[in-house]
Amino acid sequence: MTATHRPTLLVLDAEPRPRLGRLTGRATIEYTDASTLPERLPHADVLLVWDFASHAVRDAWPGDGPRPRWVHTASAGVDHLLCPELVASDTVVTNARGIFDEPIAEYVAALVLSMAKDLPRTWELQGRREWRHRETLRVAGSRACVVGSGPIGRAIVRSLKAIGVHSALVGRVARVGVHGPEDLDRLLARADWVIAAAPLTEETRGMFDARRFGVMQPSARFVNVGRGQLVVEDALVDALRRRWIAGAALDVFDREPLAGDDPLWDVPGLIVSPHMSGDTVGWRDALSEQFVESYDLWEAGRRLPHVVDKRRGYVPGA
Amino acid sequence: MTATHRPTLLVLDAEPRPRLGRLTGRATIEYTDASTLPERLPHADVLLVWDFASHAVRDAWPGDGPRPRWVHTASAGVDHLLCPELVASDTVVTNARGIFDEPIAEYVAALVLSMAKDLPRTWELQGRREWRHRETLRVAGSRACVVGSGPIGRAIVRSLKAIGVHSALVGRVARVGVHGPEDLDRLLARADWVIAAAPLTEETRGMFDARRFGVMQPSARFVNVGRGQLVVEDALVDALRRRWIAGAALDVFDREPLAGDDPLWDVPGLIVSPHMSGDTVGWRDALSEQFVESYDLWEAGRRLPHVVDKRRGYVPGA
Repeated sequence: MTATHRPTLLVLDAEPRPRLGRLTGRATIEYTDASTLPERLPHADVLLVWDFASHAVRDAWPGDGPRPRWVHTASAGVDHLLCPELVASDTVVTNARGIFDEPIAEYVAALVLSMAKDLPRTWELQGRREWRHRETLRVAGSRACVVGSGPIGRAIVRSLKAIGVHSALVGRVARVGVHGPEDLDRLLARADWVIAAAPLTEETRGMFDARRFGVMQPSARFVNVGRGQLVVEDALVDALRRRWIAGAALDVFDREPLAGDDPLWDVPGLIVSPHMSGDTVGWRDALSEQFVESYDLWEAGRRLPHVVDKRRGYVPGA
Repeated sequence: MTATHRPTLLVLDAEPRPRLGRLTGRATIEYTDASTLPERLPHADVLLVWDFASHAVRDAWPGDGPRPRWVHTASAGVDHLLCPELVASDTVVTNARGIFDEPIAEYVAALVLSMAKDLPRTWELQGRREWRHRETLRVAGSRACVVGSGPIGRAIVRSLKAIGVHSALVGRVARVGVHGPEDLDRLLARADWVIAAAPLTEETRGMFDARRFGVMQPSARFVNVGRGQLVVEDALVDALRRRWIAGAALDVFDREPLAGDDPLWDVPGLIVSPHMSGDTVGWRDALSEQFVESYDLWEAGRRLPHVVDKRRGYVPGA
């Protein structure tokens, strides 16, 4: 028997841990947290960012010298790990493309239907034991503007279409079936539902600002399932208080978790959920399985799926 | 000019009143409430039951002598007006078939998605300013049992199918695409969602009782958009408290409006809404328009649409 090099797989940890049983004997698996990451990172061949809420990679990434050849994040967004040194390096970054598409699309449909049917108010009235009949909105025939033309945005368009909502999809550049940013204001002005599902990049940061909320209809409702920093939160709060728009639902925030004393918790017409839109039962197992399958390919020297364009900040292409 | 007989159209009233402008000069329109109904009823040619929450017709219907030749109710259900004398008479009864189908189907989809995505708990946690991540359910691939094979039940099946839910439809008798009552228990036992959308008849009254809730899965959720008396409410409350089923949503109740001190308001896992599932913006105008169109036909001596089989208690056929 010959001694073979066993790659070191470093896992930036979170509970519950990933299921990596299939890699036993094939990789030396080490778990780390933010505090030990800087010293461990140079010795790792592969980094699995399991704690996708952590920004530790961005801070710990070595400017030069040894570094992992491959970083995989158990998330769709990669904004939490990209730093100039990682972008400039030859390290391959992959993401969890595909895992969250359909769950997030269902979640958006749930929010849209709930808002149309005034369910938050129903719960509020139930808590006060108050019988108050209201007229609600038809969803069929209404119009959405979905911002973000990746697999999540496209899944949202499909799920909204299933419930009768006509969507316009907006991406970084116009192409068949996708509007470019030059059409955004015009589409916002006639949308009943505005859905933010774009990656966080320098181009999208703060794109939903006071001017954009001002363009929307007073009856419009805004949903963010992308990244908190797509939205200027103060501008959204203002838009809701001034009734520039009729309602909003945020699943993602500038700072997460939202602090107990954050003013966002009780803005009238705003639904707050704790970054869970894509997390359906079994999601962690699906993420583990996806990573292990990619590991098989990496070990065999084959091409990895879902490689991030590090300069753009997302996985390009259909 | 000859004096022609102008039919008397009696309207059992509710605010806001129906839009009957097109009948001006064609009918003598009188508005009545429960107190004056018994004296007015014998002199009316047509009765429009606009206050569909009222049981006054059942109590006021004359045993013999003059009576309206046509009764139209601005509702899908007719249980509130049928009495033995009306059933035995040659008076034609029509209902508002078609107006509520798609709105109720959307409402059911909203409830199903809300429960799958744990939105009631999200609102509760938001009220407590608590950030608590949870895993939620996929809707796609789940199974529903829809009880009631009329147009509302069939619309519910379509809207659930659009969001990926496979439904079995149960009606009074088995036919193509519809299960008979003999299959009900077997279908309840494997349903993730049980949707009650049947008319209230002697056959369906109290059909959701302790035994039926006992047959359902502990993960099942029950929705009633039919009539309150389809359900033995105490049995449902018991089933929720004992966790025989995971949750329920009632839009209709044994007694409506639900009193402020009714114990149903705060049963854990129970969503209470005030009989509004079909009432989308413009619904009253749609009901008025439907009646006026039928009036045109009646006046011309033509066949009326949506004629109720008074013995069965609903409009039969597809």
